Amino acid sequence: MPEDTPGPLMIIGGAEDKLRKRAILTDFVVASGGPDARIVVIPTASSIGDEVVELYDVLFRRLGAAAVAACRPETREEAHDPDLVKPVDEATGVFMTGGNQLKLSAIICGTPVGDAVVRAHQRGAVVAGTSAGASIQSSHMVAFGRGGATPKQRMTQVAAGLGLLGTTVIDQHFDQRNRYGRLLMIVAQSPQLLGIGVDEDTCATVTLEEGHEVLRVSGRGAVTILDPARLVTNSYEAKRSSPLLASGIVLHVLPAGAAFDLTERCLLPTASQVSMQDAAEIAEAQADLRQMARDIAAGDVGPSYLRRHLARTRGSRQTGAHAEQGQQAHEEQDGDTR
Amino acid sequence: MPEDTPGPLMIIGGAEDKLRKRAILTDFVVASGGPDARIVVIPTASSIGDEVVELYDVLFRRLGAAAVAACRPETREEAHDPDLVKPVDEATGVFMTGGNQLKLSAIICGTPVGDAVVRAHQRGAVVAGTSAGASIQSSHMVAFGRGGATPKQRMTQVAAGLGLLGTTVIDQHFDQRNRYGRLLMIVAQSPQLLGIGVDEDTCATVTLEEGHEVLRVSGRGAVTILDPARLVTNSYEAKRSSPLLASGIVLHVLPAGAAFDLTERCLLPTASQVSMQDAAEIAEAQADLRQMARDIAAGDVGPSYLRRHLARTRGSRQTGAHAEQGQQAHEEQDGDTR
Repeated sequence: MPEDTPGPLMIIGGAEDKLRKRAILTDFVVASGGPDARIVVIPTASSIGDEVVELYDVLFRRLGAAAVAACRPETREEAHDPDLVKPVDEATGVFMTGGNQLKLSAIICGTPVGDAVVRAHQRGAVVAGTSAGASIQSSHMVAFGRGGATPKQRMTQVAAGLGLLGTTVIDQHFDQRNRYGRLLMIVAQSPQLLGIGVDEDTCATVTLEEGHEVLRVSGRGAVTILDPARLVTNSYEAKRSSPLLASGIVLHVLPAGAAFDLTERCLLPTASQVSMQDAAEIAEAQADLRQMARDIAAGDVGPSYLRRHLARTRGSRQTGAHAEQGQQAHEEQDGDTR
Repeated sequence: MPEDTPGPLMIIGGAEDKLRKRAILTDFVVASGGPDARIVVIPTASSIGDEVVELYDVLFRRLGAAAVAACRPETREEAHDPDLVKPVDEATGVFMTGGNQLKLSAIICGTPVGDAVVRAHQRGAVVAGTSAGASIQSSHMVAFGRGGATPKQRMTQVAAGLGLLGTTVIDQHFDQRNRYGRLLMIVAQSPQLLGIGVDEDTCATVTLEEGHEVLRVSGRGAVTILDPARLVTNSYEAKRSSPLLASGIVLHVLPAGAAFDLTERCLLPTASQVSMQDAAEIAEAQADLRQMARDIAAGDVGPSYLRRHLARTRGSRQTGAHAEQGQQAHEEQDGDTR
């Protein structure tokens, strides 16, 4: 990957599988270079940073990473330490753990360590984060707030994130902690933002493809996107903690395999599943078509011959059908193949 | 109200206030005729029907209803009893309690008691219901299912409701029991339906206004509407309990005071709040306009006179402004009043 192409963002909704298939963490190590991966873990959001570093160190090495280092500033002053900046600048993958995202942002944003994470993204490294480490990647970050499906005034607070993903607000544990309400409150007050809610053990991977930011979903849950571009709201005058008017938000629930163009704000087509029965019917119809083409090519046959031929072919299946009906039935069957 | 106009539907999300202001229950008694209200309570959804009837009997009488009767079939056979049909046919208001909506629908739908409820609605009586009594009013009813924000295959079941409100599916306790997921699953599988989620102590009142079904919200929470008309989904091929693709659903969160046209599927405008300061500025600008109109009416003044006059008026506020600038500034100020 050329140095001036931003690297992938991996936005994980928390509680990613660490015991069984470890699909998301494996994807992270592979994207970071597999056997060449130099990973730095930033556990600042966690109150038990040492244990968290140890856990991810073991995990990432088992998954084949060449090196795992820690960068754990506990104050803004420490976040100026060149010894902490260095492993970030050398990393092919940055992993920010869960915990308290406001602690993480308050300590690293606008410091040399925070700037090094932004720089890592810009030079093409993978930047991943789970839970708190997911939220901080957006320009506008859910700082904290209570659960609930209905958006209510003052139910949540916004702080500034690292801004790796612009014009967005990311929330996590979305399904498990009932967080529609707080994400709706934020986009009702800031309708230029796209709201992104990521379920547990689920990853939204964002890459730049032909100038568009494309989000792809993997893992067990879904990614929910709230597009408030055509919003009608009363968020600027709702009193105290009253429910908010938020009308006209476009909602996208995206399971594993789905792809969404964040730049155009639309679903990207993905291949649909083909059932065995449908595949067999298509094969039969295509064989019929090929036979007809051979018949036409073989002789100087006119339309009346073809009608008789088709009537004979169909006649063996449909007793009593005369030529015209036979042809019509054949055309209808062909229609199924489109 | 003429006999051939359908009456209001009051769809209550459960746990309506019974102790303090009792706003929703008061609205129901008033709509049912206040001192002339003859109310029938259908407690079939509840497993403690007698106590529930007693509770609502006391409440509705205290709120001024003339008469309160009970209609409590416990089997489909009992739901054929003319003695149970009679109070429904005589009621000005029908109230269906909470409990198990599948018990309610399995016992009354398609029986003389169920038909009498439909008839009551059609002849103009108020039909209200809370929780289970709300769900049963829609054509397609959430039978049961678990909570969660993300729609998953098989997470909920649909049964047929009374169909007082057509082409809809109603869910209740929406905010409190985290029911986005199950309502999303249903509309992803049945995208002709409008999904309606009603919070606790919240009422969606639906009336017919000039041929349109209009939903108005009252109470402490919100009513959430999911419009899947432009849905893209994989609901027909998603396996087991996997999360569903549901892209392009239009979402409306409606707090108390909001009105929504169910026929056109759009928000209806409501008066916005006017702040004291805005009102004062408007009054001043209108006074300016009236003065200008008097000046024009008073003499045969031409445009050049008017420009000089405006420049003088504005000059006392804006030092150094010449005529053209003064007029422009005045026009801009007038613009604020629109």
